[in-house]
Amino acid sequence: MIPSDQAYMARALELARKGLYSTHPNPRVGCVVVKDGMVIGEGWHVRAGEPHAEVHALRQAGENARGATAYVTLEPCSHFGRTPPCADALVKAGVARVVAAMQDPNPQVAGSGLRRIAEAGIAVESGMLEAEAREINVGFIKRMESGLPFVRVKLAMSLDGRTAMASGESQWITGPAARRAVQRLRARSSVVLSGADTVLLDNARLNVRPEELGLDAELTALAAQRQPLRVLVDGRLRVPLDAPFYQAGPALVASCAADERYAAAGHELLALPGADGHVDLRRLLLELAARGANEVLVEAGPRLAGAFARLGLVDEYRIFMAPKLLGSSARPLLDLPLERMAEARELKISDIRAVGDDWLITAHPVP
Amino acid sequence: MIPSDQAYMARALELARKGLYSTHPNPRVGCVVVKDGMVIGEGWHVRAGEPHAEVHALRQAGENARGATAYVTLEPCSHFGRTPPCADALVKAGVARVVAAMQDPNPQVAGSGLRRIAEAGIAVESGMLEAEAREINVGFIKRMESGLPFVRVKLAMSLDGRTAMASGESQWITGPAARRAVQRLRARSSVVLSGADTVLLDNARLNVRPEELGLDAELTALAAQRQPLRVLVDGRLRVPLDAPFYQAGPALVASCAADERYAAAGHELLALPGADGHVDLRRLLLELAARGANEVLVEAGPRLAGAFARLGLVDEYRIFMAPKLLGSSARPLLDLPLERMAEARELKISDIRAVGDDWLITAHPVP
Repeated sequence: MIPSDQAYMARALELARKGLYSTHPNPRVGCVVVKDGMVIGEGWHVRAGEPHAEVHALRQAGENARGATAYVTLEPCSHFGRTPPCADALVKAGVARVVAAMQDPNPQVAGSGLRRIAEAGIAVESGMLEAEAREINVGFIKRMESGLPFVRVKLAMSLDGRTAMASGESQWITGPAARRAVQRLRARSSVVLSGADTVLLDNARLNVRPEELGLDAELTALAAQRQPLRVLVDGRLRVPLDAPFYQAGPALVASCAADERYAAAGHELLALPGADGHVDLRRLLLELAARGANEVLVEAGPRLAGAFARLGLVDEYRIFMAPKLLGSSARPLLDLPLERMAEARELKISDIRAVGDDWLITAHPVP
Repeated sequence: MIPSDQAYMARALELARKGLYSTHPNPRVGCVVVKDGMVIGEGWHVRAGEPHAEVHALRQAGENARGATAYVTLEPCSHFGRTPPCADALVKAGVARVVAAMQDPNPQVAGSGLRRIAEAGIAVESGMLEAEAREINVGFIKRMESGLPFVRVKLAMSLDGRTAMASGESQWITGPAARRAVQRLRARSSVVLSGADTVLLDNARLNVRPEELGLDAELTALAAQRQPLRVLVDGRLRVPLDAPFYQAGPALVASCAADERYAAAGHELLALPGADGHVDLRRLLLELAARGANEVLVEAGPRLAGAFARLGLVDEYRIFMAPKLLGSSARPLLDLPLERMAEARELKISDIRAVGDDWLITAHPVP
């Protein structure tokens, strides 16, 4: 049986996923070059500033690429960035056909790479396994399309929807497998964002600990080379500079106030006062996207996570649910006071799976 | 390929499950008689007072049963009840081998039916697909082994663990598929138990509405012939006799007080005052088991369901989780005030499955 176009694209997607922990701020992209039913070149984008997936795959194929089909998970670029346009490289290599999973998500350039290739007389297709391809770059796509990053809110709760005891005690609701999964969520994110409550209460550092990722050696090494930007929302600058969070490395602090000591200690303080006396979270997200943030992981308590929810800024919930009851005095999942059933926030649960003894629920707000 | 012993027992279990809605207070039992690799008789127990599964299957097999193998999901009875002992019927029919999924759960008689058969020179085995067989009669087994019924607490909650708005508004958290599933849980139960809060707030009748079961015609007809006993826990007799609950048919009321008007209206009032000023729930369960209740479905608000949880009387939670957020002002899953993480109640989640747009979580307290 000859493998189908879909099978080659599925392989290209598999290659793209290898870049999950390293391509920021670039998208994850994979490429497979096929001739006479044989894979003659494979490549994936490893990190920004280094060659794109197509270049790796064409290099491997060499002269043999002439007349071949190239499968790419994202439309080849047509502009000069830190590397020359991949559309030109494909034309120059003499491939006969290019199959893309999706167009460039930037509305200003979508289609121009494929057009350039088609104008050179090469057969062009787009849209194969597009849903899978979009999933891999959900953050990059959101940023290109809207100027905002993809906001993923991670929560750990009991079966009765509680995140901590009334005292604030919360260690540990979930087990080691869930904590490893959270490490992987951090490692794939451009930004890990938290609030003063969490950082003060849990002495949280919010960094990636490569040995806890549970990944193979290659991916662990890639993840270890890049720490996501750690962002602290601390409107009244309650977290002291000697807290473990600040000691763990340079961070970005979003506040309502200004204070010169943060810059002196190697951190960046961003004054983003909102109308309500709190940090303007929407402006913060716009600022992070402007700096190339694709995926923002919010790891915060009910107050800050609830504020993101109330403002409609959440794209995805990843809720780790532990098989236990913390009881009715314990803290809520989100500070989200609603009066009537008609105000209930509708979600779509796309996935529930076991993670050790806990369960991971993936849910998206219904617009 | 010759079907295995397991395959025949699986068929017997399938037959047993047909009695899910009708055998109370008896167990659900199925039987398959096989000779020379052919099924020559099948039977299942339909309802109390009518023939047992073995009798149906042996009748179908007729003279042919001589030298056959009989697969039964529960050890054949050895005592005269409303029907003669099945052990004798199997001996008389001349079967060569009897395979049981499990022994009689009553410790006083366990093994005596199989012993009687073995003493007649028939080959005997027990324990095949035992876990599946126990699952079908979880209530009957609990009652036989402990004198208490199996208590299944049904709850409907949002993703953030809330069962109603602060005002009490709770219709509808879950969708029609979940409500059909609740109807089936009621129909299989010996008793449906609720509290005054729920009955007053929701005008609940707590009866089985056969047309809402979503079952085939045969099972719907069987379920329609038997309403579970409706039990109301109403310590201070707050629910008036003209409430829809009482109008829907005779009920059992457990209270701390006595009142002659209930009997006059066709209901039974049971005075079970507990030491804490509330109805003694444990005594109520003992009383229900004494009346033959195998499975008790608790459909109550956070207070009464929480009381069962606090007293350690819950065997299983069936939690319908809707993909929505009701927010932090809404009512808790259970009134269960705990102070420290060490007091958290551990559960084992055995199953999570989609039910329409909602999800059904099955969980059991870890002893």
